[in-house]
Amino acid sequence: GNGESRPKKPCIEHKEMTYAERAKLPNIHALASKLLTVMEEKHSNLCVSADVTSTEELLEIAESLGPKICLLKTHIDILKDFTSETGQKLQAVAEKHNFLIFEDRKFADIGNTVKHQYEGGLYQISSWSHMVNAHVVPGPGVVRGLSAVGKPLGRACLLIGQMSSQGALATGDYTQAAVKMAEENSDFVMGFICGGKLTTRPEFIHMTPGVQLQSGGDGLGQQYSTPENVIHSKGSDVIIVGRGILEAPDRLKAAEAYRKSGWDGYTRRLALNQQ
Amino acid sequence: GNGESRPKKPCIEHKEMTYAERAKLPNIHALASKLLTVMEEKHSNLCVSADVTSTEELLEIAESLGPKICLLKTHIDILKDFTSETGQKLQAVAEKHNFLIFEDRKFADIGNTVKHQYEGGLYQISSWSHMVNAHVVPGPGVVRGLSAVGKPLGRACLLIGQMSSQGALATGDYTQAAVKMAEENSDFVMGFICGGKLTTRPEFIHMTPGVQLQSGGDGLGQQYSTPENVIHSKGSDVIIVGRGILEAPDRLKAAEAYRKSGWDGYTRRLALNQQ
Repeated sequence: GNGESRPKKPCIEHKEMTYAERAKLPNIHALASKLLTVMEEKHSNLCVSADVTSTEELLEIAESLGPKICLLKTHIDILKDFTSETGQKLQAVAEKHNFLIFEDRKFADIGNTVKHQYEGGLYQISSWSHMVNAHVVPGPGVVRGLSAVGKPLGRACLLIGQMSSQGALATGDYTQAAVKMAEENSDFVMGFICGGKLTTRPEFIHMTPGVQLQSGGDGLGQQYSTPENVIHSKGSDVIIVGRGILEAPDRLKAAEAYRKSGWDGYTRRLALNQQ
Repeated sequence: GNGESRPKKPCIEHKEMTYAERAKLPNIHALASKLLTVMEEKHSNLCVSADVTSTEELLEIAESLGPKICLLKTHIDILKDFTSETGQKLQAVAEKHNFLIFEDRKFADIGNTVKHQYEGGLYQISSWSHMVNAHVVPGPGVVRGLSAVGKPLGRACLLIGQMSSQGALATGDYTQAAVKMAEENSDFVMGFICGGKLTTRPEFIHMTPGVQLQSGGDGLGQQYSTPENVIHSKGSDVIIVGRGILEAPDRLKAAEAYRKSGWDGYTRRLALNQQ
């Protein structure tokens, strides 16, 4: 050594922070903080992907599975009977069962266009969805356009850093560009859609789709990972589960199995990193 | 030389083909053939981007600018008053004025999701739009999902190989992956959204957004090229013009100026390559 007495890095830097601790970080987005708080309160890092085509079924899922989830992910544009009431009713159920709403719109156009798509049209997504996501392929204008609409409303955005589908091009430099774009726009970007942890900054929330209790795929390129793998091994924060729950004979029972599996992955990750 | 008498390559391989010649290629997608025929008949490689928020204004643009264009590009999800009649009326005007319809949805999800987004929801895009576009970031499943819906209806897809916005990530290997995906799915993919020609295969149609008679940008990352540059220098086939026409004091006059400028670029490109 050179004789200098360098202070050791404090243990806290190596320690895995809890969801509750991260919720209190000074620079965290208010909505990320809210979500982490909900996760801690409900012992749930489960997001259900409600890929159904009728408003009645969407609201039924929100009502029945609401107690098990931290987040409900919607594809509002596949509902055959959407009305402006759909968004209002969804908000009421989310309030009642203490979860947030995430419209999985995957905005992917230039800033001026996504502004209109987010705020206007029949869906008026910004009026009822707490968060949306965006592809980074258009460059930073997509975030600036969405932020112009969403930030004044307290909304937030997730950037798609990786995808679960076969042959996806969101890898390597593309993924790194997403991380950089998030860091440069952390007043509106609260995290990532990804396969696993992309950045060690604890302010960002990582959410992973393509999750099933049994790994495998569908016939159109989707590839599944298990909750254990996603949360414990890959260091993601939220599991997004669609068909694993929606196609189960008992959706509530399946949701509880995923909630438990995801939460177990989290507590074991914490235990491992706090030894 | 080695004494062998190799036949010279016929001139036709070096010669720039006309839109009419390309329309008759044996392996061309029927809808690409139809579009090239319309372009030749109307002396127009102009696509107007009808980025307006009311059905009345959309139909008014289609009616008044219809004679000048080969293609009308829509963002149906920014209309505040869409009904199923909107699509039907748009089709009737397209028929009347001999142009095609292109819903600029930029599908960008896994195959199973885009299937529902393309066919279902309130917009039922596949029922009224001749063509749609897709990002290639999800991998080939996005094309397979769209094709499952659109191919039986005689629809077609454009893949986004490049974008006009600042900092766009659709470059290099990403762009090449788009070309490969198009070539491997040419039963449904008819061409590209791009800055200029991406492949020499004359079956594919290249369309370029971000076109204005004066180059420049907006405040949200959009960057503009001129029709001359896009068609003559970069070898694209169709100019996509939005604000250059919509924000002009006389839209019809502006559309005619763009039609003429785009067509002049094309005829000069032909002349240059046929000398």
